[in-house]
Formats: sequence, C-alpha cells, structure tokens
Amino acid sequence: MSYLKRRNFLKLSGLTVLPSILPGITTQAFAVNHKLPPISATQVVSFNDDGPFYQPAEYINKLQEINSAEPIKMDFYGGGGAVAQLCEKFADLTGKPASIYMPSGTMANQLAISVLSGENTKIFVQETSHMYRDEGDSAQAVFSKRLIPVAQGEAHFTLEQLQEAINYHNQGEVFKSGIGTIAIENPVRRCDGKFVPLDEIKKISAWCREKGYKLHLDGARIFLAMAFNGVSLKEYASYFDTVYVSLYKYLGAAGGAILCGDKETIGHMEHLIKIHGGTSFSSWSNAAMALHSLNGLEDRLKKSAEKSADLFSALNKLPGVKITAIPNGSNIFNMELTGVDNKVFNKTLAEKYQIMIRAQNGVSQIRVNETLLMQDNKHILNAFADALKVAKV
Amino acid sequence: MSYLKRRNFLKLSGLTVLPSILPGITTQAFAVNHKLPPISATQVVSFNDDGPFYQPAEYINKLQEINSAEPIKMDFYGGGGAVAQLCEKFADLTGKPASIYMPSGTMANQLAISVLSGENTKIFVQETSHMYRDEGDSAQAVFSKRLIPVAQGEAHFTLEQLQEAINYHNQGEVFKSGIGTIAIENPVRRCDGKFVPLDEIKKISAWCREKGYKLHLDGARIFLAMAFNGVSLKEYASYFDTVYVSLYKYLGAAGGAILCGDKETIGHMEHLIKIHGGTSFSSWSNAAMALHSLNGLEDRLKKSAEKSADLFSALNKLPGVKITAIPNGSNIFNMELTGVDNKVFNKTLAEKYQIMIRAQNGVSQIRVNETLLMQDNKHILNAFADALKVAKV
Amino acid sequence: MSYLKRRNFLKLSGLTVLPSILPGITTQAFAVNHKLPPISATQVVSFNDDGPFYQPAEYINKLQEINSAEPIKMDFYGGGGAVAQLCEKFADLTGKPASIYMPSGTMANQLAISVLSGENTKIFVQETSHMYRDEGDSAQAVFSKRLIPVAQGEAHFTLEQLQEAINYHNQGEVFKSGIGTIAIENPVRRCDGKFVPLDEIKKISAWCREKGYKLHLDGARIFLAMAFNGVSLKEYASYFDTVYVSLYKYLGAAGGAILCGDKETIGHMEHLIKIHGGTSFSSWSNAAMALHSLNGLEDRLKKSAEKSADLFSALNKLPGVKITAIPNGSNIFNMELTGVDNKVFNKTLAEKYQIMIRAQNGVSQIRVNETLLMQDNKHILNAFADALKVAKV
Amino acid sequence: MSYLKRRNFLKLSGLTVLPSILPGITTQAFAVNHKLPPISATQVVSFNDDGPFYQPAEYINKLQEINSAEPIKMDFYGGGGAVAQLCEKFADLTGKPASIYMPSGTMANQLAISVLSGENTKIFVQETSHMYRDEGDSAQAVFSKRLIPVAQGEAHFTLEQLQEAINYHNQGEVFKSGIGTIAIENPVRRCDGKFVPLDEIKKISAWCREKGYKLHLDGARIFLAMAFNGVSLKEYASYFDTVYVSLYKYLGAAGGAILCGDKETIGHMEHLIKIHGGTSFSSWSNAAMALHSLNGLEDRLKKSAEKSADLFSALNKLPGVKITAIPNGSNIFNMELTGVDNKVFNKTLAEKYQIMIRAQNGVSQIRVNETLLMQDNKHILNAFADALKVAKV
Repeated sequence: MSYLKRRNFLKLSGLTVLPSILPGITTQAFAVNHKLPPISATQVVSFNDDGPFYQPAEYINKLQEINSAEPIKMDFYGGGGAVAQLCEKFADLTGKPASIYMPSGTMANQLAISVLSGENTKIFVQETSHMYRDEGDSAQAVFSKRLIPVAQGEAHFTLEQLQEAINYHNQGEVFKSGIGTIAIENPVRRCDGKFVPLDEIKKISAWCREKGYKLHLDGARIFLAMAFNGVSLKEYASYFDTVYVSLYKYLGAAGGAILCGDKETIGHMEHLIKIHGGTSFSSWSNAAMALHSLNGLEDRLKKSAEKSADLFSALNKLPGVKITAIPNGSNIFNMELTGVDNKVFNKTLAEKYQIMIRAQNGVSQIRVNETLLMQDNKHILNAFADALKVAKV
Repeated sequence: MSYLKRRNFLKLSGLTVLPSILPGITTQAFAVNHKLPPISATQVVSFNDDGPFYQPAEYINKLQEINSAEPIKMDFYGGGGAVAQLCEKFADLTGKPASIYMPSGTMANQLAISVLSGENTKIFVQETSHMYRDEGDSAQAVFSKRLIPVAQGEAHFTLEQLQEAINYHNQGEVFKSGIGTIAIENPVRRCDGKFVPLDEIKKISAWCREKGYKLHLDGARIFLAMAFNGVSLKEYASYFDTVYVSLYKYLGAAGGAILCGDKETIGHMEHLIKIHGGTSFSSWSNAAMALHSLNGLEDRLKKSAEKSADLFSALNKLPGVKITAIPNGSNIFNMELTGVDNKVFNKTLAEKYQIMIRAQNGVSQIRVNETLLMQDNKHILNAFADALKVAKV
Repeated sequence: MSYLKRRNFLKLSGLTVLPSILPGITTQAFAVNHKLPPISATQVVSFNDDGPFYQPAEYINKLQEINSAEPIKMDFYGGGGAVAQLCEKFADLTGKPASIYMPSGTMANQLAISVLSGENTKIFVQETSHMYRDEGDSAQAVFSKRLIPVAQGEAHFTLEQLQEAINYHNQGEVFKSGIGTIAIENPVRRCDGKFVPLDEIKKISAWCREKGYKLHLDGARIFLAMAFNGVSLKEYASYFDTVYVSLYKYLGAAGGAILCGDKETIGHMEHLIKIHGGTSFSSWSNAAMALHSLNGLEDRLKKSAEKSADLFSALNKLPGVKITAIPNGSNIFNMELTGVDNKVFNKTLAEKYQIMIRAQNGVSQIRVNETLLMQDNKHILNAFADALKVAKV
Repeated sequence: MSYLKRRNFLKLSGLTVLPSILPGITTQAFAVNHKLPPISATQVVSFNDDGPFYQPAEYINKLQEINSAEPIKMDFYGGGGAVAQLCEKFADLTGKPASIYMPSGTMANQLAISVLSGENTKIFVQETSHMYRDEGDSAQAVFSKRLIPVAQGEAHFTLEQLQEAINYHNQGEVFKSGIGTIAIENPVRRCDGKFVPLDEIKKISAWCREKGYKLHLDGARIFLAMAFNGVSLKEYASYFDTVYVSLYKYLGAAGGAILCGDKETIGHMEHLIKIHGGTSFSSWSNAAMALHSLNGLEDRLKKSAEKSADLFSALNKLPGVKITAIPNGSNIFNMELTGVDNKVFNKTLAEKYQIMIRAQNGVSQIRVNETLLMQDNKHILNAFADALKVAKV
C-alpha cells in the first residue's frame, strides 16, 4: 500500500470513502491494531463492509468446503472450469448473451467503454463515479478516452442533465468528436451507496437507444440492490449494453470481476485483456468463491435487509442511538450516537461481541450485509446496550 | 469545410465564436456572397478580424514585395532559411532560449503540454479555452492526457480556483496520477478576447513554480495584447515554461505557429512533429509573411489602438451608435446600433466603403486590428454616418 | 535540419539515399557551396532530383503566373478553393471516390493504415520502405501499429513472400491479433526507384481481396511511373484501397500530400488530421502549384523519358561514359565514368552549363525528370563532352 | 480457451511449443481424456512440464498445509502480507533493491521495457522470444513501442548481431528515434529451453552499459537454470536493469509474476499496474504458494538434475531408447524411441505408473523438473522397461 496515499486514507477515513475503497480493511485492521486473532468471517457481524471478508485461513477452509461438496474445475487463462461456470451464471443473472472474467473492475470498466465507444472519444460519467475519480486517469492515459463529468457532487445525473451536457459539447464544439458511451455507476460508492433511481435509468436508456449512444453499468455492488429496492440484476442489465459486477466486494472472492454484454462486444475482450497484461494463468479460486456466494445470495441479502429493519427499529429505542435511512439509499445507513465515547464503544463491540462498527463523532455510516446473519438480533441488541453503557460519558 | 459542423457555424455565427474560429472567413465570405471582387487586404478596414487576411493574389504580391526587398531563404523540413530566422525572432521576442515552427496551434499546444507533463496526466485548463473546447479531444485521443476544466464559462481562473481544483483531485483521489501542466489561454478567444489579468498570472506562476508544476501559455493572439495593456510578450513569456503564438491570425501567414521554451523542452519537438505527421517539406512562405508582419507590428498595433480610441469616441457621438469597451478586454469592443437595418448597414459599409463589419441585432462585436490604418478616421466616420442614414428604419 | 542526422547524410550521400530523402537539396546546396546565384528551376537540368525545385523567387513567380491565368481560390482548413480542386483532380486521376489534402506523406501513410486496419495491429510492409525506415517509428509510437517487414533489402516482396510472412505470424502466434493492412511503396525510394512489378501487384491485390486484407499504396512518386512503364495511376489505384501521392517531390509544391480512397475511409480523415495537429489554416499555394504541375505532366514526363533514351544513347558513345538502365527501374539510371576527376566534372557542368549532376567514384545515380526539357539534347551532349575533356585525368 | 487458437494448438502440439505455452495442460488433459481421477501433483512424475501443477483439490491442500505451518498474511492491492514477503524474497534472490507483484508475465515484460525506455521507441528482442511472438502485439498496440527482432529463428543473438542490428537502424534511419531497451529471454521457451550463453550476456551487458542502453531479462523460467548451469539468479540479475520471473510455471502458484529492479524503475509500477487494470484486490494465495515453493527449490532442482542424469544414462541402455542433451540446453532433453507404438507407450506409463510423458514419432521432448523426485529412479526405469515391452511393435 506504499503507493496508495496513506495520508489521504487517514483523512478520508473520517469521511465515508475509506470502507468502500478498501473493503474489509477496517475490520481486519482493527484486529491487527488490537492484537486480536484474525477476525473470523464466520462469526463476526461487520457494519463496516459490504460483505464477508475472509482471512487466508478462512478462505482456504471455504475453498476446502466448496471443493468437498463438488470438485472445483480448473480454468486455463480464464477459459473453462469454474470460470466458465461463473460466466454462465452471470450470463443467466444478467440476461446478457456473453460474459467474461476480468482481473479488476478498472479493467472491466475501461475495456467496456473502450469497445462500446469505438473511435468516439466522449464518455459521460457521474462526477462522483469510480470511473471519474478512482481509476487513476486510466481512461485518458491508457484508453485515450475523454471522460466528461456530469452532475458535480451528486449521486446521479438526470436525463435532462445528461442531454444538457451532451448538447453543450455537441453544439458548442466546432471540431466534432463523437459521443461514445454513457456510463452509470449504481449504487454509487462515493455517495453513501445511493441508488440511481430506476425511472431515471429507464428514461436515460430509452433516450440513449434512440440516439444510438451506448450504455455501460458499473454495477460493482449492484447485487446489494436486490434486497433494498427489489430490482433484479436482469432488469438493470436490460437497460445497458454492458454490465460489470465485482467479485470481491461482497461475493467473497479475493479479486476479479465479471463483464457481461452481447457476443460481439464481449468477443473483443479476451484479446484486449491479454494485450493489457491482465491474463492470469488460472483464476478458479476466485470463480469458485463467487459461485459459492451467489448460491442463495439473493435470499441471504433479503433476510439481512429484513433483519436490519427489525434491528434498527429496536436499536433506535435505546437511549442515545439514532439510525436513519439515507434517501435513495441501499445498504448504508446513518448512525448518530450521543453521550458515548466512540472509541470505547467500538472497542467493546469488537472485543466482547465480535461486532465490527466504526462509530465516530457526528454521523457515522453503517452497512448492512450478510454478516448480519451471523448473530441473532437479540444478541446484537444486547451487545449494543452493553457497549453503550460501558462507553457512556 | 465539409467536416466542420456547418450547422453549428450558422448557429454560432449569431454568437461571438465564429470570427475567431474562422478568421477572415466572414470578410471574404461577404465578398463572395455579394459577388464583389475579392476583398483587398491593402484597402479594406475589417472590424471582423484580428488582422489582415490576404487573398491569394495579394498574398503572392506580398511575397513578391518581401522577396524583392531581400531574397527569402528556403528552409528544409522546418530547418534553416526563413523559418530559422523567424524562430530566432521569436526567441528574441519571448526571451526563451529555443523556439520551433509548428504546422498548427493544436500541435503546438498539445506537444507543449505533452512534453512538459512527462508521465503526469492531469492538465488544468480554462473551461472556455481552445484546448478544452476546440481541439477535437486531441489531448485525450492522441496525447493521453486528462484535461481538467477550471472556472466554467469564465475567461480565467484565479489562483484560488486553481488551487481548489488541484486540491480537489490531489486530496480526493486515492490512486495518484501526477499533476502535469497548467495551461492558460490569453487573451481568451471564446470570451470576447478578454485578458487573464496580469496579476493573476503572476500569482499563478509564482505558486506553480514553487510547487514544481509546469506552465504553458496558449498565446495564439498574445501580440494583440501589447497595444491594449502594454504588457510585452517577453514579460508574459517570463511567467511560463512554453509559449505558443499563431502565425495566421494577425501575422498574415497562411498557417503555422511558433512554440518557444527552454532548449530541452523544444529539443523534443522536431522528432515529435515528425512522428505525428506534421513535418512539411518547406514552410518558408509562412515564415516570410510572419517575419514581415512582425516588422513594425508593435508600432502599427499601438497606432491602431490609439486610432480606435479616437474613432470610437467620435462614432459614439453619432445618433444610434454605442460602442463600449469589454471589461478586461483586448481588441474586441461591443457595438449596439439602434434604429438601423443591420443588413443594409453592413452592406453599405462593405460595398461603398470597403469597411467590413457585422452589425446584428442587440450587441455586436467589433475588432480593432491593423487594418484600421488602411483608411483615415475621417473617412471611416463619414462612412458610418452615411451607412446609418441609408440603413435608417 | 539540426535534428536530422547530419552525419548520416554525409555517410548516406555516398550511397543513393540522400537525393530521394532531401530532393533538391543537392542541387541548391551546390549553388550555395559554389556561391552561385540560386539555381533557376526554369533553366537548370538536374540529374539529381525527381522534378523541378523552385527557390522562393521562382516559386513566387510561378504562383504569380498561375494566378494571372486564373485567380487561385483560397481554401479554409483544407476545404474548398484550390485544395478542393486538387482533390477532385486526384479523385479523377485515381478513380477513387474521395480524396483529401494531408500536410505530409508520413501523415497520409500512417492515417491510411490506421483507418484501414481498424483494431487489427499487423501491417506488412517492404523492409526497404519509407514507412518502415523513414517515418521515425510513427506507426508504433503514435498509431499503435506493428509494422512487419517483408523481403529484407529487396525492392518488393512477392505474393509468396507475403503469404509466408502472414502464415508465419498467423500460424505461429497463439494469441491472435489481426492482420490489418498490406502497404506497398512503389516505386521504391530506397531501392533506386525500382518498380514493384505490376503482375506482382495484381496477384497480391487479388489475394488480399479474397482474404479481406486491406491494401495501401505509398505512391509518393507514382506519377513518375507513367513515363517509364506506361501504367496509369488509375490502374495502380484500382489494386489498392488507398493511395498516397506526394505534392512536393516532382509536383512543385513546397509540401503536402494527397490521400485517395473510398468515401468511408477518407471520411475519417478530417477529424484525424485535426487531432493529430495537422490542420493548417490554408494550403492553397501548395494546391495551386501541384494543380499547375499536373497540367500536362503526363506528356512532359513522357517526352523526358523519350528524350533521355536518345540522350543516354548518345552519351554512351562518348569515351569513358557508361549509362545503364536499372532492372525494374523507373527514372533512375546508373552512370559510370572512367578517366575523369568527378569533382571537376560536376563543377564544370554546373557552372558552365547549369546542368546538375553528382558523378562519383564507381557507379553514380542519375535521375530523369522534366527538367531535362529545359535544354536540348545537343546542348547537353556538348556540355558532357566538354566537361569530360576538362575533367580528364 | 475459446480465443486461443485451438487449431494452432493442435498443430503446434506436434512441435515443441505447446507444453511451454500451456504448462500442465497436457498432463491434466491426459487425465481428463482418459477419465482418470485428476492427476496428483504429489505422486506423478511429469516429463511434460517445468514443475508441479496442482489441481484445485491439491492446491487447496497445499495452502492448508502452508497456512498451518505459519499463518498466511493477507495483502491489500498487492501491498503487505504474503505478497510483501515474496517481494522481499525476490529482492534478496536477485540482489535488486526493489520488486513488485505483477498479474502476468506480459504485464511484467511490457511495463519493464516501457519504463526503462522512456520516450525511446526501439526495443531489441530475440526473434524467437515470448515478447516478440507471444504477447499479442501488446508492445505496439498498448505500449507504443517498436520491437525489433534479432537473430531470426535462433535462441539468442550475439553482441555482434545486436550491434549490427542497432547500427542498421541508427545509421540507416535519417529521422532518429532513440534506442530504448535490449530485452533477453533466458532460457528461451520457443527454442527448447536453450540458454543464452552467460559469456554472451556478460558481453552484451558490458556494452549496453557503456552505451547507456537499458537491459531487461525475461527470466520467466530462469530459476530452472540454477540446476543445469550453476549460474545463480543473482548473477544473472546483476547483468540486467530489470528481471521478471514467473510464479506459475514451476513455482506452483496459479498465476502472477515478480518484477525486480532499482527503486526508481519499480517505483513507477504500482500506478501503471493500476491504470492498465491489473490491480487485484488480494493476491496472497499466489504469493504464499510461490514462497513455499522457493523454500528449498534450489536444492530440489539440483537433485532433480542429478537424478535425471543417472536416470537418462540407465534409460539409454534400454533397447530402442535414445535420450540426448540439447546443446546449450537447460531442463529439456530429446528422446527418440524405436520400435514402439507411442500412444500405447504413453498410456501405459500414465495409467500404470503415474508417469506423464508424450512420446511421438521422431524426436520428442522430455522435461526435467522437481516432479522427478516423486518416484525413485528404479521404479521409473522399470516403468519404462515395462511400457516399452507392452508398446512394442
């Protein structure tokens, strides 16, 4: 992590950015800082992450368990075996005819807009999106595309804002350079996991198709959506030409991504991954972990969402606790504690109850994910009550 | 011009963009539309342009005249001869140790930021600048740079705005990609020829040097500055690492540009021009025209500015004429006519008096340039008075 | 010329490369070295060049003469006016539906292969071609293409050699990257102006079309062909998808090139020229010169070829002179002098007879071009006889 | 594997290329084709590979075993944990101050030459090298470099050949474009694993350092060298600026590579990996496997080499068997069988003895690697004798 801006992390950690950038780090870092044994993904409830994060020991056990149930099949260079199975699964989930394994979300996003746009250079993105702010200028430096940010500071742009941005360039620039792709991140990592409203997506999609503009969905965390707004991945995917989903943020893999689309678009990818240096000899372990996670995920997430509703309702009855939904939000909620020493509170929950949370002064963010199923609500409620007492000031 | 967006031109022609994009076109187009003989640059006063535009016949005569006074020397591939003389002249005018002939302003700007920035990708530019809006996404598509627009819709950004923009990226982006160059266009074509205030340039330059950021001046029309704010090219150049000046906008050449800077930076250019396909066998005619124009230009522009002050003061006494300076402006002024049929007015001045102007409803822009010296103020004043009468409604 | 490798020039000048790289330089350099007045293109016979080279004074006179006959029309950014006329002329000469003005042959070649190849990276070229050896690695550095040289050291490759080269890559490489374009230079500058045999071109063209590979003709000097092998530009062009012809090597312009092809391919070019920085404000002077040269060129070249046959036959009867055709050659011939001091010989012809030649020890190359029409054969014959006498050793 | 050219594989499988391109595939494919249980890397002797290949079940067991001995530490984005340990190990093994984890050998090679070369475009490589023939034109298409092949069809070039190639370009090209890096693959996959002679490397290195040219070692399989020529990785590395070693060809990982060099060069990599899309969330499993393999590897390889010498000597006494060393060879030997049905022979060894071999008509290649230690020589000798008898024709 020498290259990642450590000082920025420290700064940003007071904000809401860190956990989504380095999922699982906070939880595990906590363990390291407190000289606890590595946190077990099979017991811990984490309000800091989007899903379970496995330490090596647990990861290996998980693989062992998966392989015992049915032998994992090896892939070669991202073809065949568990990777092929995962691609088929995603083709099925998205309703797209083709899908392919990618080494990273950055490569998935960049190759998608690159191929969809052809020689057109203009790509319209949310100003708050991962593509605009967290891919190290890859679009310009490596893929020769011009990202045009829309709706500064907001979770999404409306069709009208998009049209205005396109017109501004189309009308105001004399030397034409074509419009390539409109890319939408949903939910939006840098905006508290807010959703882009489905109706807006429908309108944008209809208009783009009329105009012949391509649409890419950065759906790194799109699966989290299902439990909170009931919209299926298949429906989302139907509005876009390509869809990227991350494998490591809540699907348990150690890395990797999937990109889905039509056969022609995806057909370009294998060569492009190769020449950009992303072709790994074998990726079956990530594929097997993600395949395993996908099994029953929809159900687990739904249960987690329901359980969180009950839990937050109960927690809100505790004195000094206020948990509120974020408008247009997905799995992230705001929590405000009063009369409490946050550090003591966090420490107590972690050490005594294996509940990871990061309360801080003012409003903190807490994340609902399937680790909520690890302990029952009563236990969690008691834990909070105890921690509030211990940490009282 | 098939590729240039004709419809946009028509639209933009109601605005202020056209003349600066296609200098001379309006004047000459007028002649064509009215089946006049080609407009003579040696008699015409044009309020539409930044300098004289020579039709082929006049251009050839001019070259003849220049060559008779002293034989023009041929260059080979942009080296030697008149081109070398021009480069020396510019090295002298800018105080920069090195300078080189470029086939276009776009290449001059792009290669400058490309070489200055090295592997850093972020280039900060005015949102209204030529680099951001009129170079066809060249920076991204060909030179793999990320242009970050600052100060939307405004002629310039302040040091504070620049710092804010840089901080926004430096602080808010986790995967670092370095700051390359800050590029400033001055005066600003898309903003009525407004100047970037000298004090702001000084502050920006001092700060950038402290921080190690490079500075490029898109001074396509910088020479026009001298007459209106008394700042020399040498002073401007002293605040920047590289300076580009256009040869065809008011220096009479049919094309070409000059880029000045230190020896190391400019030393990269010959090869880069070659591999980007910009190496012409011979460019002595553009160089000779520009060299000729530069001779006494400062003086002529100064006289034009002084003469325009007198003229506008006199014209403002005519009923229905209101000419006002643009704040921070250079050679462009606002003109408002009342009680006049603009078309008749324009046509009368052109056909009877060889005075090119483009009055339109509301506020029109008129440009001071050295063609003002072609006729005396009295004559121009009479011409306006007559045209106002003829065009009265 | 600081960047061009001067030492290489000196070295290469013993070879055959220099004149074709820097046409006209030798002739004019001679004048400079000998403190002669600039060599007049209207009197001089030059055996060093492919066509007449005009010093500025003559160039201006020529433009004057052209404009007097019919006023030259201005172009704007390579559209309209004389440039449009030239493009139409070339569309007519090549039989291609579209053509466009390019600032340089390098840009014409590179953009042609770039657009024809799409995302395919492999371009097959003669190992001796301009694209492979004289474009500064532009194909790789700017246009991201892989040039694969075929037929090392030879003027052309055969269909069999091409097939073998393609198979070698297609069969032997596991990670496929498509075949883009086959580019052929004809005649071949680095190989004594040798032709690629027409039958070979026909075979290659038929096979490439069957396979779906694109074909580009670097016909920088293709017009010289007509007089020496009777094949028309239109016939050559019919075997290729795109054709580039230089405007300055024997068409008298100071720079520029024309690229012809189908409408779709050429339709991409205006934008690409712009973003690569090659869009000049106005190029009418190059266009007017080339248009003028094209007028009657075929006839003049034919006469030059016929006249050279008579002349060489007569010269070969002089003692110590041996002029021989180059197999597959176009306008270049080998000359061997015996019993002569070459320097004295060259100087005598230049100073006394305005005949430019560069005899050297062993075999020298002499070039037939339309300057041969400037003096009658008898005069030239006498001049040689005299020079041989003066230079006798 | 849909994109990999299947037909080529089939063709090439008669040659020597396949096993090195898809290590382990043949062994495992055999198992699949013969409906055997997955081949166990802990019992099988494979003459088809460069090292052991673990099926998922075995891979997981291996990880389990490693983690039990000492808990594996997680990395984040290639920083910290087992990845950092592996990088330190390699810095130690190569004597280079810095090293970094790469997702693929292609990325390691391409980024190395890209950073070492700066703006210079010419990279000299063996014509038979992986970079020239097996990286899908990545150098040109993505990294804008020109690969110049040297010594067609041969395992290595000599210093003289390199100098000749450089001179050919340096002297013969007029528009200079700098020499970047000389890259050497060693041992050479496409040439029967032949070594580049150490003396040649020393000479090339000394000369390149004198000239200021950078040197990159594609040492994908360099560790195999130790056992066969006694040259340490540290010594090899001392002659180069950067060194790449593969993690999956004989170090047991499922993918990944390490690049070592000085701090400045390697310091550029983290950002470049990110923007090229190669940053994986976590890579500890590959790192842990490679670390484990490195433990005692030198000793195991040495024993394998010695054991193979005894074994081959004994096998050569069997009637119809002829095993010979390849000149300049490393771990690959030629085997010729007479009077034997190869298919029956191969099948017998596999099914009865868990010995993987791929005898074919004429000369076959067999590879020495540490799987040879899985069975004792007597057992292998008996197995061969039996298989020869069964397969006799």
